[in-house]
Amino acid sequence: MKKYSDMSKEELLTLKAQLDKEYADIKAKGLALDMSRGKPSADQLDLSMGLMNVLSSDSDLKCETGVDCRNYGVIDGIPEAKRLLGEMSEVDPDHIIIYGNSSLNVMFDSIARSMTQGVMGNTPWCKLDKVKFLCPVPGYDRHFKITEFFGIEMINVPMTPQGPDMDMVEKLVSEDASIKGIWCVPKYSNPQGYTYSAETVERFAHLKPAAPDFRIYWDNAYSIHHLYDDNQDFLVEILEACAKAGNPDLVYKFTSTSKVSFPGSGIAAVAASKANLEDFRSYMQIQTIGHDKLNQLRHVKFFKNIDGLHEHMRKHAAILRPKFEMVLNTLDRELGGLGIGEWTKPHGGYFISFDSMEGCAKAIVAKAKEAGVVLTGAGATYPYGKDPKDSNIRIAPSFPTPEDLGKAAEVFVLCVKLTSVEKLLATVR
Amino acid sequence: MKKYSDMSKEELLTLKAQLDKEYADIKAKGLALDMSRGKPSADQLDLSMGLMNVLSSDSDLKCETGVDCRNYGVIDGIPEAKRLLGEMSEVDPDHIIIYGNSSLNVMFDSIARSMTQGVMGNTPWCKLDKVKFLCPVPGYDRHFKITEFFGIEMINVPMTPQGPDMDMVEKLVSEDASIKGIWCVPKYSNPQGYTYSAETVERFAHLKPAAPDFRIYWDNAYSIHHLYDDNQDFLVEILEACAKAGNPDLVYKFTSTSKVSFPGSGIAAVAASKANLEDFRSYMQIQTIGHDKLNQLRHVKFFKNIDGLHEHMRKHAAILRPKFEMVLNTLDRELGGLGIGEWTKPHGGYFISFDSMEGCAKAIVAKAKEAGVVLTGAGATYPYGKDPKDSNIRIAPSFPTPEDLGKAAEVFVLCVKLTSVEKLLATVR
Repeated sequence: MKKYSDMSKEELLTLKAQLDKEYADIKAKGLALDMSRGKPSADQLDLSMGLMNVLSSDSDLKCETGVDCRNYGVIDGIPEAKRLLGEMSEVDPDHIIIYGNSSLNVMFDSIARSMTQGVMGNTPWCKLDKVKFLCPVPGYDRHFKITEFFGIEMINVPMTPQGPDMDMVEKLVSEDASIKGIWCVPKYSNPQGYTYSAETVERFAHLKPAAPDFRIYWDNAYSIHHLYDDNQDFLVEILEACAKAGNPDLVYKFTSTSKVSFPGSGIAAVAASKANLEDFRSYMQIQTIGHDKLNQLRHVKFFKNIDGLHEHMRKHAAILRPKFEMVLNTLDRELGGLGIGEWTKPHGGYFISFDSMEGCAKAIVAKAKEAGVVLTGAGATYPYGKDPKDSNIRIAPSFPTPEDLGKAAEVFVLCVKLTSVEKLLATVR
Repeated sequence: MKKYSDMSKEELLTLKAQLDKEYADIKAKGLALDMSRGKPSADQLDLSMGLMNVLSSDSDLKCETGVDCRNYGVIDGIPEAKRLLGEMSEVDPDHIIIYGNSSLNVMFDSIARSMTQGVMGNTPWCKLDKVKFLCPVPGYDRHFKITEFFGIEMINVPMTPQGPDMDMVEKLVSEDASIKGIWCVPKYSNPQGYTYSAETVERFAHLKPAAPDFRIYWDNAYSIHHLYDDNQDFLVEILEACAKAGNPDLVYKFTSTSKVSFPGSGIAAVAASKANLEDFRSYMQIQTIGHDKLNQLRHVKFFKNIDGLHEHMRKHAAILRPKFEMVLNTLDRELGGLGIGEWTKPHGGYFISFDSMEGCAKAIVAKAKEAGVVLTGAGATYPYGKDPKDSNIRIAPSFPTPEDLGKAAEVFVLCVKLTSVEKLLATVR
C-alpha cells in the first residue's frame, strides 16, 4: 500500500476518478443505513424477553424486607436491587441508591441539584459567576449537552489510551476553584473504548481540588460490557481508591442496566460516600415518592446476581463481537497503511473511534449521508459540537444487522478515501 | 347532644373522667394502626395484577408507529399512551407528554427548570431576588415541600367548598409580579375533597397575572377517582377554558395512574399548550433519553381506553366507599352536634379533612399516636408545616383494613373528645 501523502498529483487524480466512480455506483444503490446510534440490536433485546414473564399476576411482589413493591415506599431502592447493582458497581449495597430508568437522568439531576442547592453545604452554583467542567475529549455528547444546558464552561482535556491527560487534570483542578467537576467514562470509554489505567485511577483518587465541591462524574456505563471472554479490560474501583486516599467524597459513580436489559426500561444506580448519598437523598425525597420498585424486582428475579449478569453479557458479546470485528477488518483491509486515518480496537463497550486526516470528518460524514449511511455527526464527541481538528468520527456497530453493517462499513471507508484524496489534491500543486 | 361549649365545669370534669377511662382502656390494647397515608390498600392493588401478565416474552413490543418499545427512542411518549392519558385528562393527545412513574417528579422538575432556565424565555427564578407561590390551604404537603425546598416564599390562600378564595387570588396575582405560580388540586382536593366550581375554573382561566411566567400548577390527581357512580363531582376542563380566555399558556396540568394501577409503577403525564410543552421538551431532551415505554405499553394494553379506566375505578370505589362511609358514620355518630369539630364529606379522592377546635390538632394527633394510631402530622396540610389555627387534620381511610379502620376511627373520635374537653377546661373557671 502506498500512503496517500506520498502520491503525486497524477496518482491522486487517477485514484480520485476511480473512487468517484465507486461512489457514484454506491449512491445509485439508494441505501438507508444507520451507524450512528449506540443502541442494542433487536437480537440483543430478544435476550432479555424473559424479563417480561418474571413477574406474573400470581407473583409475590414483596421485597425481602416484606414491603409490597406495588405500593408507595422505599425511596432509595429495595435491598436486593441495591445488592445486584452494588455487585455490578463493585461497591457495598450501603453505598448504593437505586433510581429510575436512566443514569443520564441521575447525572442531569446531580448537576441541577448542584446549581440550585449546592454540594454538601457549599454555595449553589447558580450563585457563582463562573462554573467550569473538565471534559476529556473525544467524549460522550450527552454529558457535554448537560453542562452546556446549565451554562457551565467546558474545558477540553485530551484523552490517551490510559485515560485523560492527568498532568493537565491535576494542574487545572488544583489551581482553579471554579472547576467543579469532570465527566469520565472510565471503562470502554465513549467513543474510544479506552479503559483508564490503574495509575490514572490512583491519580484521580489523590486529586487535591481547589473547590471543596469538585466531584468526579464517573459514568461506568460499560462496566460489564466486554466483547471478549479472554481479553478484558480491568478498572480499579474508584470509590475505595478515593476512600483510601483520604478523599471519600470526591466521586459520584453511575451505572445502569440500559444496555444490559432494555434501554429506557432498565434500572439505574449511583454509588458514592454516605455523605454524598445524603445529599442525593435530600433532593430525591422532595422530588419523588419513589422509583419503580416492580421493575427493580423484575431485574433482580431475572438476573439474580453478578454471575447472572456476566452470563447475560456473554450473550450480548456473542452478537456484538462479529459486528465490531467486521468493521475493524474492513478498516484494516481498506485503510491500513494509507496514512489517512487511525482507529481504536476496543475490548468492550459500544463504539469505535475513528480519526481522519485533519479537516476531513465533516466532509466524510456528509459524503456518507449522501450515499445513504448515517454516522454520528462530526464534532458530536466534543463540547459545543466543535472538534478543533475536525477529525473524530464515532462509529456505532451495534444496531444494524450484520449485512447492513457490512454495506455501511464499505461506504464509510470509501468516503474516507475520497475525502482524503480531495483534501490532498486541494493542497498539492 | 349537648354542645361541649355549653357544658359547665362540673359536666366537663365528669365527662373527662369518663373519657380518661376509655382512653386508658384503648391504650391498654396496644394498637398499631395507620390512618396517615394516602396509599391504596392491598385489595386495591390486587385489582391491577393483570398488568403483570399483559406483556409476555411472546408479545409484540412495538407501539402503533412501529417503534420497538424495548429500545431507545420516542422521548415524549408512545402515541397510544398519549391517547389514553389524553382521554383521562380530557385533552387532545397533541397536548400531552408522557413521563415516568411520578407526576410529583414532573412538578418538581418544572420548578427546577423554572429556577435554572426560566419559563418560556423569562428570567430564571434563581436570578430573581424573590419568588412567591400561592398555596390554597389546607393543601398537599408534598407540593409545599417542593416550593419550600427551592426557597420560594409561600402565601396561604383559604380554600372554600368552591375552590380557593378567588378574590384574593386575582388581587395578589395581578399586583405582584414575584408571584409565579399556584398549587391546585382542583378535583376531590387533598385533603378536603372539594372540587373547584365552574366559576372558579373560569376565574382561573381569566387571571391577568403581573408575571408573564406565572403558571397554574393544576394537579389533577383524582380526576377519575370517584366514590359514587351516581354522585360525582364535575370539573370544567382548564386547558380549553384558558385557551378560550386568551390565556393558552397559563396552566400546566398534571396527572398520573399512581392511584389507578400501582403507586410508583404507573405512568405520569403533563398537558399544556404547545408552547409550554416545547419548554418541557427542551429540558427533558437533555435530562433523559426517554421514559419507560414498556410500562406505557403495559398500561395501554391493560386499560385500553377511558372506558376501561372508569370500569377499573369503579372497582377501586367499591373498596374505598365503605371505608369512607365507616369513618364518616363514626364522626357523625360520635361527634355530631358536639361543636368540637367539623369535617368534609367528599364524593371522591383519598381524604377526609377534619377541623378541630382551634389549638387542638397537635394534641389530638399526639394522643392518637400514644394510643397506637398514626395520623398525618398536624400542620402538614399547611406551608412550612404551620397551621395558624392548629385545627386541621387529614384523615386517610384507604390503607387500613376495614377492621383496623374501625378501631382507628374510634380512637380518633375519643382523642378529639378528650382533647376538646381539656381545652375547654383550661379556659372555663
